[in-house]
Amino acid sequence: MPHIQLPDLPGIRALMTYRPETSKPLNELAEVLLRSPSTLTRGERELIGAFVSSRNECHYCCSIHGAAAAQQLAGGEQLVDDVKRSLDEAAVSEKMRALLGIAAKVQRGGKNVETEDIEKARQAGATDLEIHDTVLIAAAFCMFNRYVDGLATFAPEDPDFYRARGALLAENGYVALSRHYGVTEGAD
Amino acid sequence: MPHIQLPDLPGIRALMTYRPETSKPLNELAEVLLRSPSTLTRGERELIGAFVSSRNECHYCCSIHGAAAAQQLAGGEQLVDDVKRSLDEAAVSEKMRALLGIAAKVQRGGKNVETEDIEKARQAGATDLEIHDTVLIAAAFCMFNRYVDGLATFAPEDPDFYRARGALLAENGYVALSRHYGVTEGAD
Repeated sequence: MPHIQLPDLPGIRALMTYRPETSKPLNELAEVLLRSPSTLTRGERELIGAFVSSRNECHYCCSIHGAAAAQQLAGGEQLVDDVKRSLDEAAVSEKMRALLGIAAKVQRGGKNVETEDIEKARQAGATDLEIHDTVLIAAAFCMFNRYVDGLATFAPEDPDFYRARGALLAENGYVALSRHYGVTEGAD
Repeated sequence: MPHIQLPDLPGIRALMTYRPETSKPLNELAEVLLRSPSTLTRGERELIGAFVSSRNECHYCCSIHGAAAAQQLAGGEQLVDDVKRSLDEAAVSEKMRALLGIAAKVQRGGKNVETEDIEKARQAGATDLEIHDTVLIAAAFCMFNRYVDGLATFAPEDPDFYRARGALLAENGYVALSRHYGVTEGAD
């Protein structure tokens, strides 16, 4: 049961409906970071979010963004599961492996990122902007995960719930989806 | 030295100038959370941010928001230092002590917040909205701290730098200050 009285909706949607004033910049941040034009694909950016959420053990965010990533990456659900289980062995590019490694350091705390982590990413072809966005995506999910779990929001068990929601997000995006559900309801 | 090539500015201002697209929702989030009308004073909200930044050992954010809190709280710098050193002993209201206790749990991870932490805050007079905002402020500073330190931005040592910047923020706010410095430069 949520720690405060919330609308009867799962995960961050309950919080975004409860507090539309903070929902607006949160959805805009997700939209810019995860969906606006970038040399990282939308699937790759969702994968960073799902990976960090997995490290933070946030079932809701990990499942939603894992589903959104799976639907936009050639490797599908198997690849997302592999990345969560073992980054070293997963079939991702060396650039993505290095960026996910940076994200894992950020999840534990910003000061953990070392010059050699950045060098490894650069040698694998990552640009400064890709490194910047990876750090901010990882940091943002450390916020979203704490927000969702710190208020004990409801996280359904059924994987099909997340597949359906992930498909809606992949199709419509964060800002549009929050409008689709009405001005007082936010996207994931 | 920062991990990526950034404008020669301290802390998050370098990042906000580098990436104005993400700067916009980040400043709007800070403005709503820390400065829009609330039953928590601006000083109390800055104190939550400074306290979480202290736990994350983010010198830049802890100093800026500590200065902004000190300038808006009757207890000034002494109170901010006391809260950082020992929450149990600091001269804050029981409501603020309970809310800061929740923020400390969120800093370590959302799942650490327990029903009894919420009960304690409620018994001290905290409303659901105050609990919500405390959790989101704490979560947001877990993002800002990781963003600033994950890219190894420059943090000046001189306390007067932070006092001056804290005064500007307390006076003008996040969104206005980011405009004051030009559309491509963000507030702290």
